[in-house]
Amino acid sequence: MSGKMNARPAAIGIVGLGLMGSSIVASLLAFKHPVKAVAPLRGEKEAGYKRILEQLLLCEKFDMLSDPFETYLALLTVSEDFDDLKDCELVVECIVEDISIKEVVFKKIAAVIPKDTIVASNTSAIPISILQKMVPDPQRFIGIHWAEPAFATRFLEIVCGNQTSEATADAVIALALSWGKEPTVLKKDIRGFITNRLMYAVYREILHLVEKGDTSFANADKCFRYDAGSWMTLMGIFRRMDYTGLRDCFTAYRNIFPLLSNSDDISPQMQTIADTRSRGIQNGKGFYSYTRDEAAQWSQAFSVFNKDIFRLAANYPEHLSGEEGEHT
Amino acid sequence: MSGKMNARPAAIGIVGLGLMGSSIVASLLAFKHPVKAVAPLRGEKEAGYKRILEQLLLCEKFDMLSDPFETYLALLTVSEDFDDLKDCELVVECIVEDISIKEVVFKKIAAVIPKDTIVASNTSAIPISILQKMVPDPQRFIGIHWAEPAFATRFLEIVCGNQTSEATADAVIALALSWGKEPTVLKKDIRGFITNRLMYAVYREILHLVEKGDTSFANADKCFRYDAGSWMTLMGIFRRMDYTGLRDCFTAYRNIFPLLSNSDDISPQMQTIADTRSRGIQNGKGFYSYTRDEAAQWSQAFSVFNKDIFRLAANYPEHLSGEEGEHT
Repeated sequence: MSGKMNARPAAIGIVGLGLMGSSIVASLLAFKHPVKAVAPLRGEKEAGYKRILEQLLLCEKFDMLSDPFETYLALLTVSEDFDDLKDCELVVECIVEDISIKEVVFKKIAAVIPKDTIVASNTSAIPISILQKMVPDPQRFIGIHWAEPAFATRFLEIVCGNQTSEATADAVIALALSWGKEPTVLKKDIRGFITNRLMYAVYREILHLVEKGDTSFANADKCFRYDAGSWMTLMGIFRRMDYTGLRDCFTAYRNIFPLLSNSDDISPQMQTIADTRSRGIQNGKGFYSYTRDEAAQWSQAFSVFNKDIFRLAANYPEHLSGEEGEHT
Repeated sequence: MSGKMNARPAAIGIVGLGLMGSSIVASLLAFKHPVKAVAPLRGEKEAGYKRILEQLLLCEKFDMLSDPFETYLALLTVSEDFDDLKDCELVVECIVEDISIKEVVFKKIAAVIPKDTIVASNTSAIPISILQKMVPDPQRFIGIHWAEPAFATRFLEIVCGNQTSEATADAVIALALSWGKEPTVLKKDIRGFITNRLMYAVYREILHLVEKGDTSFANADKCFRYDAGSWMTLMGIFRRMDYTGLRDCFTAYRNIFPLLSNSDDISPQMQTIADTRSRGIQNGKGFYSYTRDEAAQWSQAFSVFNKDIFRLAANYPEHLSGEEGEHT
């Protein structure tokens, strides 16, 4: 795949080469963006470089690379030195979700970058409005939230803090498009962003139904896999309503909204998950149980599925048809 | 595709040949089940037969038929005569969502079927516990809820009423598997069933966020298409949580549940949708606006997407790995 820009784009700095950071680096390289990767932790440089290679090899395996592998690798530098970030048009922080460690990293970034560089965080836990107070120019600070694995998902959430300027958001939207993404923009800093926030509404309701004994986790999974899953990637939420004709929506809302759970309580099942230190496929204990082999199979299946669904989603671009209507 | 049974299965009766009924008939024929279709409305017999043919031609186009087209058509009778149902092992009502009309139809069905025939409703609006009071043997009454288009979706929701027997549920589960479905079973008659019910929780939250001006319908659609859509069909809800490692779930729930909308109010946007008689792609007005061409493109896209996602979902069967754990 090739970037949309004619000239070689300016470098993008990535700080933090954990799973997510490495995956983001690979996804940028695949679209031919030069990347300055900085690994602040001891030993992270070597481990991070290996992870980036692995992710980039996956890009090749998934036919995302049109040029020789070396072409992409030549766009990358990995170091422990924040000075490397000095020519970047954008620097993205991808380190641990610890606010005081982030503050130190933002200081180090600010010390080397030029005035017009945009600084971003890949956080999914800390409000952008809080993080942007830690940089000299909050207007040029923004959230950029990738989904994992970054190279194989079309999703990218751009999150503005209270002080983020429109110019900053526009610049990042343009970049995101050149990375092959379908960016969404959150004008305000909603706790949990959109997808997570909406999924929490789902969790609250389904945990409530399971607790009442009305259904099981496995049944709920089937419903979302085969029913919601049969249109979700094509239509999203509101286009789906348009598709079904909207006739009974109004009555149904009036009937069903009052039945939904409004509870703030943690369900007993979630309490058990926490008490037993269940970590899902990471330690084999969760809503389902997994052998080591089964956990590996799920990781593998997700990679392959992601490739397939990435391609499938690309067949139905946003501009297929249907402008946003007068009610939106 | 071929049914799993060795002997030719007993006929299945379908009453009502609207869009959904016709689509169900085609999906049963594709798996070589003999179907007795009854069209109670004036003129419905001819229109219904045409619709069934169209749906079956789509099955052929999507490579679902291994034998000559005629083989499947030979399994079908279409009439206006309830007497045709007398040899059916299962009769499914697919008529309009009107409780008094359904009562008349159930009486007509009961008058001709043998004692051990199961009677079902494809309703998505009326509780099964209410409908089953209208038949002589409520234990052998059940809800079977297809997703549209019935031939191309793996989803099938089996809904028990208060009086439905376990034997009835088991018999319908076995049938559903022979129709190529992945049935889910609702032991209780939850208003809105599972998927709809969970989606209402999503609607409540997103309508609230849009009303506050935090995001737009189009952004929410992108999030669900590209983010949730990147794992939904593979994992469902709880397997996804297992996959992400469950580490921060507990804290996130405690932080975010209290922020979710608990409102029973209809949002101004939904009120406008109702007031303007918006019918989505049916009349071009909805959350988005559509020309006639664009509406047709979406219908076409959904058919093709359904074929693709049906196949993709089939690559990842439920038994891939991971047994239901101790907490489920």
